[in-house]
Amino acid sequence: MTREQLFEQILKKKSYLCIGLDTDPLKLPQHLLDFEDPVFEFNRQIIEATADLCVAYKPNIAFYEAQGPQGWVSLQKTLEVIPKEVFTIADAKRGDIGNTSELYARAFFENMDFDSVTVAPYMGADSVKPFLTQGGKFVVLLALTSNAGSQDFQMLRLEDGSEEYLFEQVLRTSQEWGNADNMMYVVGATQAEYVQRVRRIVPDSFLLVPGVGAQGGSLADISRLGMNRQCGLLVNSARAIIYASSGFDFAERAREAAFAVQREMEALLEELLVG
Amino acid sequence: MTREQLFEQILKKKSYLCIGLDTDPLKLPQHLLDFEDPVFEFNRQIIEATADLCVAYKPNIAFYEAQGPQGWVSLQKTLEVIPKEVFTIADAKRGDIGNTSELYARAFFENMDFDSVTVAPYMGADSVKPFLTQGGKFVVLLALTSNAGSQDFQMLRLEDGSEEYLFEQVLRTSQEWGNADNMMYVVGATQAEYVQRVRRIVPDSFLLVPGVGAQGGSLADISRLGMNRQCGLLVNSARAIIYASSGFDFAERAREAAFAVQREMEALLEELLVG
Repeated sequence: MTREQLFEQILKKKSYLCIGLDTDPLKLPQHLLDFEDPVFEFNRQIIEATADLCVAYKPNIAFYEAQGPQGWVSLQKTLEVIPKEVFTIADAKRGDIGNTSELYARAFFENMDFDSVTVAPYMGADSVKPFLTQGGKFVVLLALTSNAGSQDFQMLRLEDGSEEYLFEQVLRTSQEWGNADNMMYVVGATQAEYVQRVRRIVPDSFLLVPGVGAQGGSLADISRLGMNRQCGLLVNSARAIIYASSGFDFAERAREAAFAVQREMEALLEELLVG
Repeated sequence: MTREQLFEQILKKKSYLCIGLDTDPLKLPQHLLDFEDPVFEFNRQIIEATADLCVAYKPNIAFYEAQGPQGWVSLQKTLEVIPKEVFTIADAKRGDIGNTSELYARAFFENMDFDSVTVAPYMGADSVKPFLTQGGKFVVLLALTSNAGSQDFQMLRLEDGSEEYLFEQVLRTSQEWGNADNMMYVVGATQAEYVQRVRRIVPDSFLLVPGVGAQGGSLADISRLGMNRQCGLLVNSARAIIYASSGFDFAERAREAAFAVQREMEALLEELLVG
């Protein structure tokens, strides 16, 4: 999917919601355990109930990997029931030397046809570039993450006289590898005070924003500071939507939770998007 | 496996060789393609031919992940035929927020019983600590990698007046999370000139050293600069050993290639290890 197509979906659905499919086998509603593949059945019903309210789904790959080979089968089946107009993000945080990153790119872009994959920047150019070779596919590079550990290295200041933080150097350097048509960035909603610094370096790129909800970030704050002319935001919510209920009504309640966020996003788009 | 036990194996085998199981289905000897699981059969024969010459095996997880669910089955079967006294490293470069890293730790330490997993440091403390909770298991943290992209961020100098590089800060900060009994570090053989800086910060830790052979690093150089009283080195070789021949004699030729490295290591241990 291209950046233009993603923006069209945002306008059509009045939403920039990304739903995190962090599907934990231990948190599934009891009645799903009778299905042959409970994880897939859970995802299928969540997707059916919410696909008109969101523009992206983001399976957290660890949840599937922790289930062994069966987890990868559930993931593949999940991908197949996501409507083609919804952007897909493999939240895998991969990244290795060139010939190895090529294999990860093959796993997520060819074998599984994801639209994008999250990538860690520590190993530099040749660990990221193999993910940038296919049109309509995106790297979502870690820049400033939502967790406490983001302080350890991402917020270190560099000696080059620029007074910049490491995450700004990551943004700047990565612009030599790709552009807004094949790179997005992870910027946590808990980092709203730094979003203007992000936008100075990558004004046009989409930001994938985790950390609203369970981690304490504010949707309104991150939207006011981070939105650009094409919205440029995908705000992720996982637990607050997919685990809104653990009963028979889990999909219905997930829809209600997603609808509440979509309504808030609709208002923010009206307020902030320069037409 | 504990650090002491690993050192005992090094003394016993007179080797600190780690063999990389970067098993590419496209590079298998033709005659293996008749087996039900050619990747496993290749690994099984390589392990049988080399297990007395090396102290560690390091499957590169991307090679298995790129084969879909079957790849994980091949990986699991491979692990089961590695003798218990040989250290195992899941070269996965994982790392995510705390609750997600917990799941990756479960995947590699519980479901698959690896002794260690490689982890990327960019997301900081809470992305690494979940891998440090089990005795006899190790994080192998990326510090200074062997690839060209290591220059992009790992070699940035910090503004704190210390004249230190980012990789040194990674080493220093990570010492607050664990110690030589549960953390090792990736330091590329191509980075020999910086190994003394590494040893200043982590004198006792094992270093996992890729980059000898195909990538151009020197075994003698990295050994002279990096060896400590318990050897403290695991030097990886993959392609030069496992693809020594693509014919019927692949396992025999792999053994010859591993034997040549083991002999060189035996001489280096005699020269350098302070008895």
